[in-house]
Amino acid sequence: MLNYKRYQRSPIINLPDRRWPNKEIEKAPIWCSVDLRDGNQALIEPMVVEEKVEFFQLLVNLGFKEIEVGFPSASQIEFDFLRQLVERKLIPEDVTIQVLVQCREHLLKRTFESLEGVKRAIVHIYNSTSTLQRDVVFHKSKEEIKQIAIEGTKLVKEYAKDFSGEIILEYSPESFTGTEVEYALEVCNAVGDVWEPTPNKKMIMNLPATVEMNTPNVYADQIEWMSRNLNNRDSIILSVHPHNDRGTGVAIAELALMAGADRVEGTLFGNGERTGNVDILTLAYNMFSQGINPELNITNINEIIEAYERLCKMKVHERHPYAGKLVFTAFSGSHQDAINKGIKAMKERNSTIWAVPYLPIDPSDIGRQYEPIVRINSQSGKGGVAFIMETYFGFKLPKGMHKEFAQVIQDLSEKQGEVAPDQIMNEFKVSYLDKKEPLHFRKCKFEDMTDGDEAGYTRAAVEYTDHGVTKVFDATGNGPIDAVQKGLQKQLGISFKVLDYSEHALSGGGNAQAAAYIQLLDIETGKTTFGVGVSSNITRASIRAMFSALNRLYMN
Amino acid sequence: MLNYKRYQRSPIINLPDRRWPNKEIEKAPIWCSVDLRDGNQALIEPMVVEEKVEFFQLLVNLGFKEIEVGFPSASQIEFDFLRQLVERKLIPEDVTIQVLVQCREHLLKRTFESLEGVKRAIVHIYNSTSTLQRDVVFHKSKEEIKQIAIEGTKLVKEYAKDFSGEIILEYSPESFTGTEVEYALEVCNAVGDVWEPTPNKKMIMNLPATVEMNTPNVYADQIEWMSRNLNNRDSIILSVHPHNDRGTGVAIAELALMAGADRVEGTLFGNGERTGNVDILTLAYNMFSQGINPELNITNINEIIEAYERLCKMKVHERHPYAGKLVFTAFSGSHQDAINKGIKAMKERNSTIWAVPYLPIDPSDIGRQYEPIVRINSQSGKGGVAFIMETYFGFKLPKGMHKEFAQVIQDLSEKQGEVAPDQIMNEFKVSYLDKKEPLHFRKCKFEDMTDGDEAGYTRAAVEYTDHGVTKVFDATGNGPIDAVQKGLQKQLGISFKVLDYSEHALSGGGNAQAAAYIQLLDIETGKTTFGVGVSSNITRASIRAMFSALNRLYMN
Repeated sequence: MLNYKRYQRSPIINLPDRRWPNKEIEKAPIWCSVDLRDGNQALIEPMVVEEKVEFFQLLVNLGFKEIEVGFPSASQIEFDFLRQLVERKLIPEDVTIQVLVQCREHLLKRTFESLEGVKRAIVHIYNSTSTLQRDVVFHKSKEEIKQIAIEGTKLVKEYAKDFSGEIILEYSPESFTGTEVEYALEVCNAVGDVWEPTPNKKMIMNLPATVEMNTPNVYADQIEWMSRNLNNRDSIILSVHPHNDRGTGVAIAELALMAGADRVEGTLFGNGERTGNVDILTLAYNMFSQGINPELNITNINEIIEAYERLCKMKVHERHPYAGKLVFTAFSGSHQDAINKGIKAMKERNSTIWAVPYLPIDPSDIGRQYEPIVRINSQSGKGGVAFIMETYFGFKLPKGMHKEFAQVIQDLSEKQGEVAPDQIMNEFKVSYLDKKEPLHFRKCKFEDMTDGDEAGYTRAAVEYTDHGVTKVFDATGNGPIDAVQKGLQKQLGISFKVLDYSEHALSGGGNAQAAAYIQLLDIETGKTTFGVGVSSNITRASIRAMFSALNRLYMN
Repeated sequence: MLNYKRYQRSPIINLPDRRWPNKEIEKAPIWCSVDLRDGNQALIEPMVVEEKVEFFQLLVNLGFKEIEVGFPSASQIEFDFLRQLVERKLIPEDVTIQVLVQCREHLLKRTFESLEGVKRAIVHIYNSTSTLQRDVVFHKSKEEIKQIAIEGTKLVKEYAKDFSGEIILEYSPESFTGTEVEYALEVCNAVGDVWEPTPNKKMIMNLPATVEMNTPNVYADQIEWMSRNLNNRDSIILSVHPHNDRGTGVAIAELALMAGADRVEGTLFGNGERTGNVDILTLAYNMFSQGINPELNITNINEIIEAYERLCKMKVHERHPYAGKLVFTAFSGSHQDAINKGIKAMKERNSTIWAVPYLPIDPSDIGRQYEPIVRINSQSGKGGVAFIMETYFGFKLPKGMHKEFAQVIQDLSEKQGEVAPDQIMNEFKVSYLDKKEPLHFRKCKFEDMTDGDEAGYTRAAVEYTDHGVTKVFDATGNGPIDAVQKGLQKQLGISFKVLDYSEHALSGGGNAQAAAYIQLLDIETGKTTFGVGVSSNITRASIRAMFSALNRLYMN
């Protein structure tokens, strides 16, 4: 029996006049990466200093202007790392580093030592304010907990006075989602009263969803309530720090932005304690997909994935939005068909706006390839197979041929699971291009007997082998296909009809190959099949296609 | 440059009087698993029939009462699988199977063939209604698209008449999130007009977020608008089918439930095309964590993970809510400390309600272990090491000793990354328990000279080796520790003080071992250290602890 009675509904706030559900996200927030602290601390193998340096440079290249670099007073590695950044002059002019520290004097002292020589830093102090932590961890009253924040702020103010660079204060009432909003407000305002921010010298109030505790709308209500009630709101940068315990970290970040947040703390691909922090990349790509500039240089997601997986020793899941291996993939036949039609329509219309069913964005816009869009398993349809033949190999199978060839592939996929493009091409060769026995076309010569503007005729001289025995014939018709058809019918004593013919260049350039497709009907049995031929000579390609079809029709 | 200008904001609807933000989720919806269709179709290796049978039985055991078993008219495997379920009588009385099919006569005919012998089935018809698909895929007007749905419904109605079992209709305006709500309503109502559901014989209207297109509140608005405006709402089961393109699948499902949805279609761990369908397990555990009965038998998540990974050949990510390997893990020192205090407080108060910082639920309630809650890397604090010593090995290190031993472990973790519990125990042995040289305690005899009620004294006779040379002494003191201390001071010519002493049983039972901790101060140098001894005799344990501390103090 599931022990659901051990758990309680977490309280919500009453905000019937909330405004956020009528808002839309209009622009990117200030992004702050906490990969090197919150993310790194939750890794099975935290990064060593050199790995941190590389990750820091990745973040700088991605365009982060605020980067939390660690908790230098708590660990020697984080102290050393910050010193490396300073001494090797790795912090660009427009990037502000951020350091986390508890409201305790010896830790603050050590923190300011670690910052020596930094031009501008965010000192991020926090203490836990939730009802639960006050009760079971700190055994302190509301007033005592507030005093921790006030004393911490005073200490930062003192140290900041003697510090050579600029210090921006960030205060987090940690476990905010488990704190009464009125009390969180009281503590934040008390901190503000000590720090005295101004519109020109703002401070950051950061309201963490340390643990997600309710449906996403509740966090949005909490943020809107705080945003409306904070003193000197115009001197405050309102920041959020969402985690993902309920799997709604991205949602609460988005709704919080609608509710008034100015800034988001998160990590790449959502590293962080337990279920992780909010994934900034998903947030940014979500904005991107709505035509909003995310203000990050995220055009090449593969490079980000590569560095992330190597440095964090974590894997990006196959279904992770935008980044997962499978997320721009359609296995379903009807999806594949719609994607193909959408891409075709965009081309035909020369559309500058992306609009393709099932693909919210163009994978190539973020450095991903088109190739894996359509993948073939036993659930896929004929459209998918045709798509792969065209996009991977350049063969534009005529519509009537899709079903015939897809059936070949479906038989294979029901046996083995996913079928790779090369296997599809291989089946195409075996079933069509290399279908050269028992009738093997060898040579031909055509003479076009067209006489001026009048309809003429073609004379064909063909050599082929039948079960290895060389045969020749001469025949005439209204064109090469007609002439060869007539010759073959006579020689073989059979009767067939050409139902469909198409041909196209396989690639550009002087010695381009052409692919020809011919559908034949056996008049006696009613059986039909396609054949395919390739040659640099379009006539030869079509004759090969006819032989391919004949071999399929009669000899299978 | 990121091509964000190629994308457009997707339209929202105007619903200023929305009611869902004031609602809370009160009970579980009707769950419908689409693992065997939407989930399975998106696997690199879709399941074979026997695997599907096992997965079906897993779903039945989990308590699903509605299970979509496939698209039997589209694939031979899905047809065969359904026939297996029927012929082997694997569908329980209280489980309704569901089959997907397009609104086309030959497919419907085949679908009803596949259902032969089923007592009750949901026939799920769909057609795509979005502006984009009408335009680029179907090239049809609104009226024509609506007719597809109407004709499909008529066909199902006809086939259902002749069918031996009960048929429930489900209709999906596929790509609903890209459809004008007014038009989606028009189509749904037209389907309802043909089917004529009643409050006793309801039909299912399923509104898929085929592709997530906007922030989660927009889907909630769409669902509430539909719920308010559908004809014969009391004859309709309003269903949602969320995908996860924006990483907010769980959020839109939750907000949709607040907005009026009665039913959710999804999969285990979120399988499905691209980023997948909504993860029903996360939804259910979210309810569970709020004290709501999720109406699923999900007490053992490890068994679900095992079957899922084996049958779907997909991995559950380390940070997947509730299921990931790391989600009940704290690496951070302050988190570890708070978790320990929370668990301790619950024990002390005999609390029946779970309330532990950073752990939304008790992992053991869903079949997960306590052991990995606290894991040690270079970012972890002393609380974590003490927690592991206590929970894994039963050693309750005195508070003063936490820092001393944690430093030993931090040195190790800064070198190697994560430190496993066994390695911590090994370091504990090397540093304390096995610290037996150069002073090696061998034997002792104590005589308690207490005389009636008066304060007495203890006489100790001790044998030990010093660099391998056997030594003995007799000494007296006010107890064994005092006597041995005095004897050793005299013999070794040193001066030390006992600062702290504690001792506890390591396990229950007759031949329980005790662990003793003694902290010594070297009076000359001011250096302090702990020593630890274990024995079935509490006196011997304490003398061993003293020798351990002495060896650490003077010989390190």
